[in-house]
Amino acid sequence: MADYVDGSAHVSEIWRKRHTASHVLAQAVLEVFPDAKLAIGPPIDDGFYYDFDLPRTLTPDDLTDIEARMRRIQKEDLPLVRSEKPRVDALAWEQGRSQQYKVELINDLPEGETISFYTQGTFTDLCRGPHVESTGRIGAFKLDHIAGAYWRGDEKRPQLQRIYGVLFDTEKELEEYFVRLEEAKKRDHRVLGRQLGLFVFSEDIGSGIPLFLPKGEIIRHTMEKYIRDLQTKYGYSHVWTGHIVKEDLYKKSGHYDNYLDAMFPPMIDPGGPTFRLKPMNCPSHMTLYNTQPHSYRDLPLRYAEFATLYRYEKSGELSGLTRVRSLTQDDCHIFCTPDQIEQEFTLALKLIREVLQRFGFTDYRVRLSLRDDNPDSKFVKDDEKWNLATDALRRSLDSNQVEYVEAKGEAAFYGPKADFITRDVLGREWQISTIQVDFIQPQRLGCEYVGEDNLPHTPVVLHRAVTGSTERFLGVLIEHYAGVFPTWLAPVQAVILPIVDRHHEYARSTVETLREAGFRAEVDVRNESLRKKIAEAEVQKVPYILVVGDRDAAAGTVSVRKHGGADLGAIPIADFVAKLKEETA
Amino acid sequence: MADYVDGSAHVSEIWRKRHTASHVLAQAVLEVFPDAKLAIGPPIDDGFYYDFDLPRTLTPDDLTDIEARMRRIQKEDLPLVRSEKPRVDALAWEQGRSQQYKVELINDLPEGETISFYTQGTFTDLCRGPHVESTGRIGAFKLDHIAGAYWRGDEKRPQLQRIYGVLFDTEKELEEYFVRLEEAKKRDHRVLGRQLGLFVFSEDIGSGIPLFLPKGEIIRHTMEKYIRDLQTKYGYSHVWTGHIVKEDLYKKSGHYDNYLDAMFPPMIDPGGPTFRLKPMNCPSHMTLYNTQPHSYRDLPLRYAEFATLYRYEKSGELSGLTRVRSLTQDDCHIFCTPDQIEQEFTLALKLIREVLQRFGFTDYRVRLSLRDDNPDSKFVKDDEKWNLATDALRRSLDSNQVEYVEAKGEAAFYGPKADFITRDVLGREWQISTIQVDFIQPQRLGCEYVGEDNLPHTPVVLHRAVTGSTERFLGVLIEHYAGVFPTWLAPVQAVILPIVDRHHEYARSTVETLREAGFRAEVDVRNESLRKKIAEAEVQKVPYILVVGDRDAAAGTVSVRKHGGADLGAIPIADFVAKLKEETA
Repeated sequence: MADYVDGSAHVSEIWRKRHTASHVLAQAVLEVFPDAKLAIGPPIDDGFYYDFDLPRTLTPDDLTDIEARMRRIQKEDLPLVRSEKPRVDALAWEQGRSQQYKVELINDLPEGETISFYTQGTFTDLCRGPHVESTGRIGAFKLDHIAGAYWRGDEKRPQLQRIYGVLFDTEKELEEYFVRLEEAKKRDHRVLGRQLGLFVFSEDIGSGIPLFLPKGEIIRHTMEKYIRDLQTKYGYSHVWTGHIVKEDLYKKSGHYDNYLDAMFPPMIDPGGPTFRLKPMNCPSHMTLYNTQPHSYRDLPLRYAEFATLYRYEKSGELSGLTRVRSLTQDDCHIFCTPDQIEQEFTLALKLIREVLQRFGFTDYRVRLSLRDDNPDSKFVKDDEKWNLATDALRRSLDSNQVEYVEAKGEAAFYGPKADFITRDVLGREWQISTIQVDFIQPQRLGCEYVGEDNLPHTPVVLHRAVTGSTERFLGVLIEHYAGVFPTWLAPVQAVILPIVDRHHEYARSTVETLREAGFRAEVDVRNESLRKKIAEAEVQKVPYILVVGDRDAAAGTVSVRKHGGADLGAIPIADFVAKLKEETA
Repeated sequence: MADYVDGSAHVSEIWRKRHTASHVLAQAVLEVFPDAKLAIGPPIDDGFYYDFDLPRTLTPDDLTDIEARMRRIQKEDLPLVRSEKPRVDALAWEQGRSQQYKVELINDLPEGETISFYTQGTFTDLCRGPHVESTGRIGAFKLDHIAGAYWRGDEKRPQLQRIYGVLFDTEKELEEYFVRLEEAKKRDHRVLGRQLGLFVFSEDIGSGIPLFLPKGEIIRHTMEKYIRDLQTKYGYSHVWTGHIVKEDLYKKSGHYDNYLDAMFPPMIDPGGPTFRLKPMNCPSHMTLYNTQPHSYRDLPLRYAEFATLYRYEKSGELSGLTRVRSLTQDDCHIFCTPDQIEQEFTLALKLIREVLQRFGFTDYRVRLSLRDDNPDSKFVKDDEKWNLATDALRRSLDSNQVEYVEAKGEAAFYGPKADFITRDVLGREWQISTIQVDFIQPQRLGCEYVGEDNLPHTPVVLHRAVTGSTERFLGVLIEHYAGVFPTWLAPVQAVILPIVDRHHEYARSTVETLREAGFRAEVDVRNESLRKKIAEAEVQKVPYILVVGDRDAAAGTVSVRKHGGADLGAIPIADFVAKLKEETA
């Protein structure tokens, strides 16, 4: 089958095109290698792939040949015809053509499942569909690269060769994709992180634990300071709960049963309790909540914390700042009454929108994940609460005119949630912020407040993160900005370059003036040419390069050059300070 | 012996008095319980104690009786006479009077050691001395309390009864001590911490891990922000290195061999490296240093970090915030050339003095710990470096007119250090800041810079902490201020109290004005009497209580009452904001 994974009939046109293209690819490969064994070939973001077991390793020339054959098959505009076979016949047919991977796939299909095939010309593949009508309609594509892959992702099973293709509706979109890819490479935050001296990894410390050099630390600190100040303005309070917790607490909260794989190994002392690094803050914040008595009058209580959490990601899955083992969440837990869900969701929504705006993410969408109607599903049974929360979230999104799509069945088991998916300047999507309603954990950990009726009640908790984690968001920001941080975030906001030695003193006094005004300024008095210093400051993406010479020293000015080369001319220091203040306000 | 522990002949007069008083105590106890077995009885800070094995548990009446006998012995003014005995005779004598603890002490004395006794009247005790001349000269004392103690601190050995006495030169000092003790009880940071809602401990999280409630968190955040801003002003950069490290790094640094007991248990994964919680930052900062190439031109490099460290203190030794398992050091490692030691020490010195001043610690002294001249001692052998560093530190202290005492033999093995010991308002001493020179660790971890000679050199590292740790310093501060934080640190800086319901709106607009000006203000609109609200704000030690009524609403004023009761009258809001700004600048 090309696809028994995503078998929904409601798949988009582009998804069908990519799916059909994978069949066209398989047909072309079989022309070249009649003994090829077919594995799976699904559509993916931006294109498709197909895994093959081949008699020899593919060369770039093979790809050219296969791609040419695909174009021929596209031109032939063969119709795709669906057929069904009983299980016994389907098995016999695949066994007959020695396609053992397909045989295995059929054997794994649940009893009673319809088994379908799609045929185009002489080629037939086990497949649930759907497809476009004919091979002529698959759009603009290009075979991209080859990679190794194990059958069923299991390194003990045979190694296969995976051919990747890129596919869009039009040649223009295809071309844009490759331009974007090129741009993305230049923006790779791992490369820029090293080049700009922001962060490093060290095998002496451990994989997945980024170490922040001074320039990276100042960015993460500035980000966190901005969020903290805003949270304070929005009425959140900050708490501090450390980085470790007795393992028993996670047994009580349910994380031990459901989240153990994500935790670092335990710290075991035969003479004392076992500790774990915190993989999340919720149980800690609820424990803190429980140390004080609460009345409905105190609610909502909003506990925010920039806590570094530790998650034991597999080392093979670690990647730069976007997949790490130490992540600093801008986490908040809002304890409220059921009646306050809408108000608190709206407050979080506004905060998130203000933050995304500030970082230049103007294009985002919200996915509202709800439970489904299946009575056997994982979702906690409490119709009243689900309805109350779902209505509150919808009302809030509607009245704040936020576009959203509903995803039935994708909620957490403990309640509905809203995720914010933003698009960066390259059009790539990133899930950043989240607001989740939780009916369960507060109950499990015994959180209470005394209601107006003088009886104990369990508060609802909203889990909320704005940037998600400082590390990952910084990774996204580096690529979003291509390393050219806006002045308020830039680690060095201005560099002062004296033209010759006799301007050093004036350059030093200028840097002092800027620092006293609260800006991050540096002076470059190395014995290098001005041209070289300017070039280096450009590479370092410093927003303002201030060249100072005789005239500047005499007039108390700086000659301002913006990153990228725009010449703003000579500006009196005080005016430049005012300009920076306005820009970074 | 009363004291074979602190046997130096150079002990102060007050120390001798306290030592002699412990002998007087033992004499009195033997009068009451002739079968009492004597253990040890040393002088201690503020007084003395003696451990006894007694036929029954002491009552408060016993203490009164024993104290009366001590006063009689004091009046008799018996001279203290020293004598020596050969080991065999000493053993026979103590065996003869069935003092088995003394027998054990004598047996443990190294061969060749002089064995001395002190006699007053009919009482003789094994003792190295020194003492005052006669029992009449012991000063003003009072028996204070009784506590249980194990022989040699070993809970498998017999349990003894320890009688504590307090002793000063004069009755006035003795009285002041008890006043101070009373005051210290009122200031106990554990009590105030709970009462002011600053921090709590939870057995669900773990002993020794303070959890900070919003009001405590804002204080610790404000402290750290102040230190950070000042460090930035002084040219320090901040880095971020997380909370865990591969255990192997501590094997390389030597901490695994020398510091293992202080570490939390390891996190062991049979399929990957073993991790440890960081008990200190040095190896992490040196590893970060090593990820970049360095030239002498880049030095000094000052890496600062507010990192929470984890130390596995025994649970019996934990106490409030002053002895914790999670401690956030305001740590800094300065990488410099040997020539820069003096300049960097001076910079750190100035920073520390500015900070101590800011927190109202005007009375402090510096202990300069140096190596001794013993060729067999632990100190790293490098005369040139020791002399260079010692001279640099002395010169800096001298030229900055800092009073200091030199403590020979008390340096770390890796270099000399200066500790700052401050006195709080109760006259209690706290060791807060430290600057330590390190010749060894940078070498062990392979730190290098390229010198002017184009050859690789090992930098000297200065370890430096200003407040020591945020948690402990906050504990000290709470007691120092008796919970009455200066306005810039107070978690709530002003509380607005509307006189009746119709003033709520004005109260709310006032709180908004203050918040927008950057202050932490709250409004109390509960349905309680004004008197009760004022009383509660006083208990919460809010610096300013602003009562607002008709006249204030009409005139745009607030009626200001300072914590403690001083009435500042009605002040226009804008003027009050200006006053707060000035006070917290």
